[in-house]
Amino acid sequence: MFMPRAYDRAITIFSPEGRLYQVEYALELVKRGAPIVGVYSPEGAVLAANETPESRLEDPEYFRKIFQFDDHVGATIAGLSSDARVLIGQARIFCQSNKLLYDEPVDVEVLTRRIGDIYQVYTQHAGVRPFGVSLIIAGVDQTGCRVLTTDPSGSYRGYRATAVGRKSEEANKLLEERYRDGVTLDEAVGLAVDAVRVASEGEVTSRVVKAAVIPTATRTFRRLTDDEVEKHLK
Amino acid sequence: MFMPRAYDRAITIFSPEGRLYQVEYALELVKRGAPIVGVYSPEGAVLAANETPESRLEDPEYFRKIFQFDDHVGATIAGLSSDARVLIGQARIFCQSNKLLYDEPVDVEVLTRRIGDIYQVYTQHAGVRPFGVSLIIAGVDQTGCRVLTTDPSGSYRGYRATAVGRKSEEANKLLEERYRDGVTLDEAVGLAVDAVRVASEGEVTSRVVKAAVIPTATRTFRRLTDDEVEKHLK
Amino acid sequence: MFMPRAYDRAITIFSPEGRLYQVEYALELVKRGAPIVGVYSPEGAVLAANETPESRLEDPEYFRKIFQFDDHVGATIAGLSSDARVLIGQARIFCQSNKLLYDEPVDVEVLTRRIGDIYQVYTQHAGVRPFGVSLIIAGVDQTGCRVLTTDPSGSYRGYRATAVGRKSEEANKLLEERYRDGVTLDEAVGLAVDAVRVASEGEVTSRVVKAAVIPTATRTFRRLTDDEVEKHLK
Amino acid sequence: MFMPRAYDRAITIFSPEGRLYQVEYALELVKRGAPIVGVYSPEGAVLAANETPESRLEDPEYFRKIFQFDDHVGATIAGLSSDARVLIGQARIFCQSNKLLYDEPVDVEVLTRRIGDIYQVYTQHAGVRPFGVSLIIAGVDQTGCRVLTTDPSGSYRGYRATAVGRKSEEANKLLEERYRDGVTLDEAVGLAVDAVRVASEGEVTSRVVKAAVIPTATRTFRRLTDDEVEKHLK
Amino acid sequence: MFMPRAYDRAITIFSPEGRLYQVEYALELVKRGAPIVGVYSPEGAVLAANETPESRLEDPEYFRKIFQFDDHVGATIAGLSSDARVLIGQARIFCQSNKLLYDEPVDVEVLTRRIGDIYQVYTQHAGVRPFGVSLIIAGVDQTGCRVLTTDPSGSYRGYRATAVGRKSEEANKLLEERYRDGVTLDEAVGLAVDAVRVASEGEVTSRVVKAAVIPTATRTFRRLTDDEVEKHLK
Amino acid sequence: MFMPRAYDRAITIFSPEGRLYQVEYALELVKRGAPIVGVYSPEGAVLAANETPESRLEDPEYFRKIFQFDDHVGATIAGLSSDARVLIGQARIFCQSNKLLYDEPVDVEVLTRRIGDIYQVYTQHAGVRPFGVSLIIAGVDQTGCRVLTTDPSGSYRGYRATAVGRKSEEANKLLEERYRDGVTLDEAVGLAVDAVRVASEGEVTSRVVKAAVIPTATRTFRRLTDDEVEKHLK
Amino acid sequence: MFMPRAYDRAITIFSPEGRLYQVEYALELVKRGAPIVGVYSPEGAVLAANETPESRLEDPEYFRKIFQFDDHVGATIAGLSSDARVLIGQARIFCQSNKLLYDEPVDVEVLTRRIGDIYQVYTQHAGVRPFGVSLIIAGVDQTGCRVLTTDPSGSYRGYRATAVGRKSEEANKLLEERYRDGVTLDEAVGLAVDAVRVASEGEVTSRVVKAAVIPTATRTFRRLTDDEVEKHLK
Repeated sequence: MFMPRAYDRAITIFSPEGRLYQVEYALELVKRGAPIVGVYSPEGAVLAANETPESRLEDPEYFRKIFQFDDHVGATIAGLSSDARVLIGQARIFCQSNKLLYDEPVDVEVLTRRIGDIYQVYTQHAGVRPFGVSLIIAGVDQTGCRVLTTDPSGSYRGYRATAVGRKSEEANKLLEERYRDGVTLDEAVGLAVDAVRVASEGEVTSRVVKAAVIPTATRTFRRLTDDEVEKHLK
Repeated sequence: MFMPRAYDRAITIFSPEGRLYQVEYALELVKRGAPIVGVYSPEGAVLAANETPESRLEDPEYFRKIFQFDDHVGATIAGLSSDARVLIGQARIFCQSNKLLYDEPVDVEVLTRRIGDIYQVYTQHAGVRPFGVSLIIAGVDQTGCRVLTTDPSGSYRGYRATAVGRKSEEANKLLEERYRDGVTLDEAVGLAVDAVRVASEGEVTSRVVKAAVIPTATRTFRRLTDDEVEKHLK
Repeated sequence: MFMPRAYDRAITIFSPEGRLYQVEYALELVKRGAPIVGVYSPEGAVLAANETPESRLEDPEYFRKIFQFDDHVGATIAGLSSDARVLIGQARIFCQSNKLLYDEPVDVEVLTRRIGDIYQVYTQHAGVRPFGVSLIIAGVDQTGCRVLTTDPSGSYRGYRATAVGRKSEEANKLLEERYRDGVTLDEAVGLAVDAVRVASEGEVTSRVVKAAVIPTATRTFRRLTDDEVEKHLK
Repeated sequence: MFMPRAYDRAITIFSPEGRLYQVEYALELVKRGAPIVGVYSPEGAVLAANETPESRLEDPEYFRKIFQFDDHVGATIAGLSSDARVLIGQARIFCQSNKLLYDEPVDVEVLTRRIGDIYQVYTQHAGVRPFGVSLIIAGVDQTGCRVLTTDPSGSYRGYRATAVGRKSEEANKLLEERYRDGVTLDEAVGLAVDAVRVASEGEVTSRVVKAAVIPTATRTFRRLTDDEVEKHLK
Repeated sequence: MFMPRAYDRAITIFSPEGRLYQVEYALELVKRGAPIVGVYSPEGAVLAANETPESRLEDPEYFRKIFQFDDHVGATIAGLSSDARVLIGQARIFCQSNKLLYDEPVDVEVLTRRIGDIYQVYTQHAGVRPFGVSLIIAGVDQTGCRVLTTDPSGSYRGYRATAVGRKSEEANKLLEERYRDGVTLDEAVGLAVDAVRVASEGEVTSRVVKAAVIPTATRTFRRLTDDEVEKHLK
Repeated sequence: MFMPRAYDRAITIFSPEGRLYQVEYALELVKRGAPIVGVYSPEGAVLAANETPESRLEDPEYFRKIFQFDDHVGATIAGLSSDARVLIGQARIFCQSNKLLYDEPVDVEVLTRRIGDIYQVYTQHAGVRPFGVSLIIAGVDQTGCRVLTTDPSGSYRGYRATAVGRKSEEANKLLEERYRDGVTLDEAVGLAVDAVRVASEGEVTSRVVKAAVIPTATRTFRRLTDDEVEKHLK
Repeated sequence: MFMPRAYDRAITIFSPEGRLYQVEYALELVKRGAPIVGVYSPEGAVLAANETPESRLEDPEYFRKIFQFDDHVGATIAGLSSDARVLIGQARIFCQSNKLLYDEPVDVEVLTRRIGDIYQVYTQHAGVRPFGVSLIIAGVDQTGCRVLTTDPSGSYRGYRATAVGRKSEEANKLLEERYRDGVTLDEAVGLAVDAVRVASEGEVTSRVVKAAVIPTATRTFRRLTDDEVEKHLK
């Protein structure tokens, strides 16, 4: 029992089983984060998150889990918010410099790969620890609508619909059962909100479930109002 | 029992449960600090702190827990005062350079995020330890009155009313029970002073409870006189 | 039992038996990766890989295991995809700078040696861990068709046909039994697809088995369509 | 019993209880140092110290515990004299550069904070240990007479009267009992000398008790003669 | 049993017996490498090696153990091929820069000492591990024919005939018994091939035993054909 | 028993008792060094040392313990001679640069403090160990005759007479008993030689006891001849 | 038994007894080296060494233990030959630069001190290990004939005659018994050769005992022929 624990001392190294323990421990932290969801629809991408504050007196305005990166792309986070801020800052800079250099909005996968590369450096070099946060990045670019995830290992994947964080197994089960190709954007929002609800504890209202969409038509990130979310909570 | 203790040796790394032990240990230090409180009112922000000196001969002038950053913003600290000085110095520089660059007072959240980013660096890189102090930052800017907290992890949150430090559970319980939306500034001061009293040990007088306000009207940080505080101690 | 595990703490060092444990642990990770195969034919090189996504909702587009480096050369990977990206990036830069400097496509072995040299640095210097990924690199250059492998130790080898990753022993057994000199490119594709199938778990369809060829005639990397792969799955 | 001791190995880090062990160990060293005292009077500041040499043949001239920093400010030390020299050197440079920059004597608190900031850096960064010495800094500036202490943690406090070092509890008890507001400078000297005597072991003469004053009137550091000290030893 | 193993943790340091464990462990790796042989004849130098690939499908072309450095000098390796590449690269650069600087082929001992110096640095400085490979360097220069070995410690030695790697004791025994002064180059090749055979496992054919000569007459490195080797395998 | 030994691993850090173990261990080394003595007389300073070589064949010329720094100042050493050379080199450079800068011989205390500051750095920073040597520095400057000691902690002290190294307790006892104020230089030499004799083992002759004086009159370092020393050995 | 071994982990640090273990372990390595001897005669200096190769086939030309540094000075080594090469290279550079700067051959002691200073740095700074080799340096300069030794601690000593390495106690016993002042150079060679013989194992012939002289008359390093050595082996 003592042994496996000895591997996370110095830098991010391999265990005898070929696992990067520090990365796996960071993933544990992500699994304890509030649930987040991303859903793809041909009509646009949806991001949703549980933003329940810890006390009645907490100002929900600062307890955000959904962030806009550029007009056409944003993300939702699960894990350490302070670590997330580092990546969000890098993402925004990358979006802006890309626009300046190429005069067009950054490709969503290119942006995600860039964030993944930052993650990777923190898993292979000494003197730092991996980031303790995962992102679901969603956006619309020339290639259409995109929903991708990155995690502390630096790998990224694309999904039709996916949930990360607390009780994500249950949320992902719901998504696998109910997602069908060709969902409308409105259906996608309903699915995302439902998935967050399934993974949440306690009462779930539009006060705590937040969502944003990037419609294919407008290519513009837009936060849903509480009423729009409420509608899907029935 | 030996195991968890092995994780804080080198740098701030993840435990198998995905916790950053050095950060959690720093939070322990904060929890042992003298109680501090911040309260939001539409009429302004309130900061209060217990500044009990350790001996009769100690000069209370140097045992400050409330600091002004700029005309419109200040903070109160719980934890290591020497660590706090580093952050206070950075905050003051940020306020001034912001004023020079943009010709307007710094946004309170932007300032808080900046402090949070400094905290974060000390949790992810080797060769340093996290800061052993938490701050309640309060101020008034274009967006109105703001009360935010930062802690050794680098995360920040906004509150209507919050207490940090020794016996903060009891102070927060009092705040949750008694805070109501739309409190006047005077009521907010009373609430803050009461919360400090609840969390304090020994006799509590205006000699040891200190407070400051940043009224929305003046946007100017002002320390309350002992008499003003005394009034709320009955 | 405690002893061997003590060697992977600091940097990649030798065990008393003269083994580099961190490299061997990285190889464990590679052995757990999805199966990949490379096959040589006088008519061209074949790369094949199992690209099974983890869930029905995962977008296979981002779950790629086969990458093009230049017109005439590509690779397939087993192990950490985020580590692979670092090497793929280096490989592509090397191909381009070689073309610029010498005005001809890079020699496949020269490219592989270069990748191997990057691997090696990460096994001899402190402050980094070895790469947790192996590559099968295939291409056609002036010297003909080439199929080479590199691994976390930085060594590289050439093969008529080889499999890496999960259950590679079974795939390699199949290749040893069935490979014969002078196979046609089409036979080589069949062999590669079969080897991937043998090493795969669950149902194996053209949805999950992907392949690419670099024919000697065209010297141009081309991904096979699902139909072309399906044909070999009978 | 083994556990707590494991925390002081690498750099100055937090224990699970949120304590900085290396700083606390440095304070142990300070507690074993020869006793030093500082006393505030409206008429000026007093520094006193036990400068007992270890042998009859030791030259007391080099066994100083009281140091002048500038005309209007000085300090007495408890702990490692070689560590103290580093801080004394920094203090003197700061006094001089302050005078050059602002054309006025440095503020005593500003000087103390500066020394505290140097201490703090040695508690948060790897590759160094904290300073093993505490200082009582006393002086007279525009704001009047000041007596402040700094310690290995980098925090500083102001006092009417305070003792540091060996048996400082007894000396502080005497000071708390006998100090009264408005003491004359001569009474303050008497109090300081008495406090040093209480904390000293063996015979206590003007050979071993040394004192210095910075009168408010002259703002000039002056060492007391043996006769002046003797008078207060009765 | 735990003790000796504790010495290889950090950098290459001395054990209480005055041994450099990391170097000795690297030598263990060399002893497990495929057998290599070097033989001196007044008529030229011979290098021979077992280049048995691991599988029937491995391309022997990339499984080389004998490398040419310059027209008049080459080497054979036992140990980690990726580590060897670093040294081979350095050797080739040294040969070329020597030719440019002095307008004559590099002296074989000077070249070997240079390689030995690179080895040595990796045994005395932190942050690197020793090289896990030994070389037999052979060549012909103004001073005649030379056969030298280097190993992970950085020391080098000259030999009439020597074997390194797996079962080198048996190969060296054969060389000691059968080597006689004044052997012809052809006899030297026979001896080298025989020594490799003795140290090899499994069937030994010209497919797996490779050899190269640098005749004194031509001073030109030449790989022997399979037929030339076959002749000596009877 | 295991615990205290764990503190000297990494850098020079504090033990729970507030001791710097590496410094204390270095002092152990000094205590095992050959005895050295310094004596003050109003007529000049005396340095004496036991320079017994280890074997009959050792050349006493290289076994020096007394070194001249400048015309008016020198030192004798106890501990590691190779560490001493570093400090001696620094001292000589400091004397010369001081003479160049200020056109007068360096003050003996200023020189000693400078050496002490070098010592101190090696006790507070990682990556080095403290110096394993103590010095008795003696000289004559404007302020008269000076005898000072420095040790691995970097602290320095002045003495009328003092002994360091093997059996220094016995030598210091003799000095305390027999030293009287106003000794002549000749008496001081006698005292110094006697103190070295008391602390020495085996036969003590002018072959092994060496001495040097810096008379107040000449301010010039001069080694005593064997005859001059012999006279005091009776 | 575990304890003392814990001290050699990180850098060269002091044990509680004030010993530098890494240096002592390096000396163990030196004690296991082949025996070397240096002898002083008013007519010149002698160096002798056992250069027995490990096998009949080893080329004695590369198994040198005696090295020339400059016309008038050379050395013999015991320990790691690869470490020795670093020091030999530094010595030769120092001889040449000294000649260029001062237009005269370097003083033998100055050269030895320089080598000692290099040794010392490797015992006080982290990131390196001490050198695992001792040198006997001999030469003739303006001050006459010199025989000095340096060792891994960086200290150096002069001798009439001395032996280092395997069985050096026996060789030194022989030298102490038989050395007499005023030996001729020829007698000194005899003594040196005898001392090597006493410390050697197995048959001792002029094939394995090598010697060099630097006569006072010529001040020129000269290797003795096998016949000259043979003469002294009877």
